[in-house]
Amino acid sequence: MRRAVFSLLVENSSGVLSRVSGLFSRRGYNIDSLTVGETLDPKVSRMTVVATGDDGVLEQIEKQLAKLIDVKEITELPADESVCRELILIKVKCDVTQRSDVVALANIFHARILDVAPDSVIIELTGEMNKLGAFVELLNGFEVTEIARTGLTGLSRGFADLNN
Amino acid sequence: MRRAVFSLLVENSSGVLSRVSGLFSRRGYNIDSLTVGETLDPKVSRMTVVATGDDGVLEQIEKQLAKLIDVKEITELPADESVCRELILIKVKCDVTQRSDVVALANIFHARILDVAPDSVIIELTGEMNKLGAFVELLNGFEVTEIARTGLTGLSRGFADLNN
Repeated sequence: MRRAVFSLLVENSSGVLSRVSGLFSRRGYNIDSLTVGETLDPKVSRMTVVATGDDGVLEQIEKQLAKLIDVKEITELPADESVCRELILIKVKCDVTQRSDVVALANIFHARILDVAPDSVIIELTGEMNKLGAFVELLNGFEVTEIARTGLTGLSRGFADLNN
Repeated sequence: MRRAVFSLLVENSSGVLSRVSGLFSRRGYNIDSLTVGETLDPKVSRMTVVATGDDGVLEQIEKQLAKLIDVKEITELPADESVCRELILIKVKCDVTQRSDVVALANIFHARILDVAPDSVIIELTGEMNKLGAFVELLNGFEVTEIARTGLTGLSRGFADLNN
């Protein structure tokens, strides 16, 4: 079992997200994460799909995705040849006395404080999935009340096949 | 016409993404952005949906989403009472002579340089949608070869209704 990151260039149509996610749910493949966003070409979106499975399953996923009419290109992003990042927002309940400890922890991870309320702060952190998980675990000593994650997106290092 | 950001707590099931995106494509509603990620409760995911429309359409979208069996809670995040962020990765083609100009521009926006290759750099920037668009436009003088965006996620400021 391994985790694979697929980068897709897809038609920017209203049905593409539904067709891609429908393929996963029909076949029982598990999606760890899926993000989609604009590219420089308004007709094309870039979708990043993260899935876990053995080599056979991952190969099937890549083949099935490539068959969809909306999918123009698909490539796997290998960990050592790509840059993959996710964004997480974390709301931590803390009063004035705890705030400096929370901020100190955030600074160690190069996280940013986006909002300070009398009884809470909102922290923004970006990184690979494991780094975000480690940070949330470190906050266990405080009361984390809400988190919001975007899912992973990525680009190959240097110059690659995808042109948008 | 205005842009609304909906924050949903949904069952962490393989079909939920397909049902939500299917609702939008069947009814012809346009999704500007959709992200989904884990919460502190492994059975629950947080989904953030951004849509543009007049008040009637946005009200319909909120009602239709609330009806889906996977959706446990839905709330709109008003711009002045929430923190919303997106992550973008941008690959810029640049040789040694252009690199310092690209890095200087990135510093102005508090962007981060994630990768430097002999002929390109990868920049990471987080912010609201408009800020990311403004940065990409400013890079017009250089050759932007690839971009990858996660879509928007967000949390209400202070303490709110959503508990995960």
